[in-house]
Amino acid sequence: MYPVSNMTNIAKGLEGVLFTESKLTFINGSEGILTHLGIPIQEWAEKSTFEELSLALLDGELPTAEELAKFDAQLRANRAIPDKLIEEIASFPKNANPMQALRTAVSYLGLFDPQSEDVSQEARREISIRLIAQFATIIAAIARAREGQEIIAPRADLTHAGNFLYMLNGKEPSPEQARLFDIALILHADHGMNASTFTAIATSSTISDMYSCIVSAIGALKGPLHGGANEQVMVMLDEVGTPDKAEAYITKKLDNKEKIMGVGHRVYKYFDPRSRVLRDYAAMVADKEGKSNYYQILETIEKTVVDRIGSKGIYPNVDFYSGTVYSDLGIKKEYFTPIFALARISGWCASVIEYSKDNRLLRPDAVYTGLTDQHYKDLKDRQ
Amino acid sequence: MYPVSNMTNIAKGLEGVLFTESKLTFINGSEGILTHLGIPIQEWAEKSTFEELSLALLDGELPTAEELAKFDAQLRANRAIPDKLIEEIASFPKNANPMQALRTAVSYLGLFDPQSEDVSQEARREISIRLIAQFATIIAAIARAREGQEIIAPRADLTHAGNFLYMLNGKEPSPEQARLFDIALILHADHGMNASTFTAIATSSTISDMYSCIVSAIGALKGPLHGGANEQVMVMLDEVGTPDKAEAYITKKLDNKEKIMGVGHRVYKYFDPRSRVLRDYAAMVADKEGKSNYYQILETIEKTVVDRIGSKGIYPNVDFYSGTVYSDLGIKKEYFTPIFALARISGWCASVIEYSKDNRLLRPDAVYTGLTDQHYKDLKDRQ
Repeated sequence: MYPVSNMTNIAKGLEGVLFTESKLTFINGSEGILTHLGIPIQEWAEKSTFEELSLALLDGELPTAEELAKFDAQLRANRAIPDKLIEEIASFPKNANPMQALRTAVSYLGLFDPQSEDVSQEARREISIRLIAQFATIIAAIARAREGQEIIAPRADLTHAGNFLYMLNGKEPSPEQARLFDIALILHADHGMNASTFTAIATSSTISDMYSCIVSAIGALKGPLHGGANEQVMVMLDEVGTPDKAEAYITKKLDNKEKIMGVGHRVYKYFDPRSRVLRDYAAMVADKEGKSNYYQILETIEKTVVDRIGSKGIYPNVDFYSGTVYSDLGIKKEYFTPIFALARISGWCASVIEYSKDNRLLRPDAVYTGLTDQHYKDLKDRQ
Repeated sequence: MYPVSNMTNIAKGLEGVLFTESKLTFINGSEGILTHLGIPIQEWAEKSTFEELSLALLDGELPTAEELAKFDAQLRANRAIPDKLIEEIASFPKNANPMQALRTAVSYLGLFDPQSEDVSQEARREISIRLIAQFATIIAAIARAREGQEIIAPRADLTHAGNFLYMLNGKEPSPEQARLFDIALILHADHGMNASTFTAIATSSTISDMYSCIVSAIGALKGPLHGGANEQVMVMLDEVGTPDKAEAYITKKLDNKEKIMGVGHRVYKYFDPRSRVLRDYAAMVADKEGKSNYYQILETIEKTVVDRIGSKGIYPNVDFYSGTVYSDLGIKKEYFTPIFALARISGWCASVIEYSKDNRLLRPDAVYTGLTDQHYKDLKDRQ
């Protein structure tokens, strides 16, 4: 008897549904274009830094030299995390998933931030700056603690990328390594309305606090349909073993129409522009420091894939290269998704700030397809 | 030069957008109808328990007597929380927002659950049962710790509602009080595709773990556009002060066209059916135990509001009564939103389980309205 909506109108996965405006990121998948503030990702990677892109996203415009210097100083000044949080992280079970650890640590941090309940635009921006800075310290601390290593305090004299690698590995990276990691962070800082950014916005749409938004985003990024693909690429590279076996391995997979990790993208039907940038920088570092085993396997897989299925619009994506880059920087694959978060925190914060300017509670609906006109039955009358 | 989508198609707030099917809850706002599994909320409130409704939502059908007995025993057996979590809660800053505390405690609990990374339907259901049971213990512990009181261990011989009031207040409630609170939990257990349920689903759509889904939902419920309305009703009742001042207070607000907390609902244009049930039970308890000051103010406000603007479809909603009911049960208004979560955990878990059966990654899109064809400018060339 209840009116049931027209079921042909269901937008499954909200695919293609436009729900807001954004001035941050533009993606044209068929042409392989990705821009932030209208500037191609290639230029950001080549000429900018993660610090600058983060500030540009937060404020929606290119900063002046003075603004950038101030922001950079703020990041450096805010790298330390409270002692209580360090103790907390050190006490996490060693076998806990690193993304669960990150989710908990960031939620815990919110309890100690006297500004956390302030949802004004100014407060959201200030909290964002601290979160961008502190994510590096938290993630490095989680990784160190899980590996049974001493947690290393941040240094203010290194870049954001360089300091992270220092805190993670316990030794200062080379300038080339720091720059390569900086570029990887730039490439992952924002990617339009992905699932974790959308979840952050859904949380913020109730005018919830910044920590709740970011904690939600961490939870969404954690899922294997979102983060985690580059971890799977490394599983594949380990399966291949040595470069000489790569071509046969991939040929067999292609012949059997099996999925190859790190290849193809829902959005990009041509090369993912981020994958090209990362490949070129990885090649540069490989030329200088020697090609790792992983890197050589990757080269062969790429060639085989592009030759065989490139014409169908299936190309290596950014996850294909990032795993190898991270591995060669001394990062274990368990920490790849937290490192995705280390970069994407800027996009999450910027997107929440942008959406909050003209907030609308998100409340789509479901079509009711269940029973109607039922009555409660006494327990003794049920089968 | 980039093709920009047609801006007239923006579904702001995803209002009216259907994105999935559900067999759990049906709402017809214009007729004031709310059903779970096709059974009117009035019957659930009158004849069922929070335990039974929770199980019915999780499994999508009325349980048999045997199934319900098993579920009830599972809830009772799982009320205890790990000692480490009790220590954790006791160490939270006293001034931390209780919803931030809940978010952190649940995230922390996930670190210690060996099943937490299992995203199978069976595991999701088992984790849900534990979460429903443990939410009561966690929320009572947070409230006791914040008030500087000793945390009280759960008792297995009481109902879910009765045990919660016992853990919160340190004394066993009367059967009438326990039943009134049970009904309040029933009325809040699920409400279709609200913002927190949607956020839980958005997180689960990446195939993330159950704890991440629930932590996201807590963050969304925390926002004042979602939870928190009944807390505002109590602020209003405190402002009114005494029953004799209620009519003048409301008349003035209505004359000035000011918003009255707890009155009107986005969905219900007639009486919210939950508000009627709660009013009737609250009246019954008030008749027996005497009318509190809050209750008397509420009666006058209700009469004034319905007389003056009821014809416009603006009626008291469930938040209007729940605040008074909770206050009269000895609950401070800071804990109203956590208590909303205590009930809604069942709807969150059930909705995640239902959506996971036919999962689709949620990824709506934004219309790009920013700059195009820009280039990176050297810092020295910027104004």
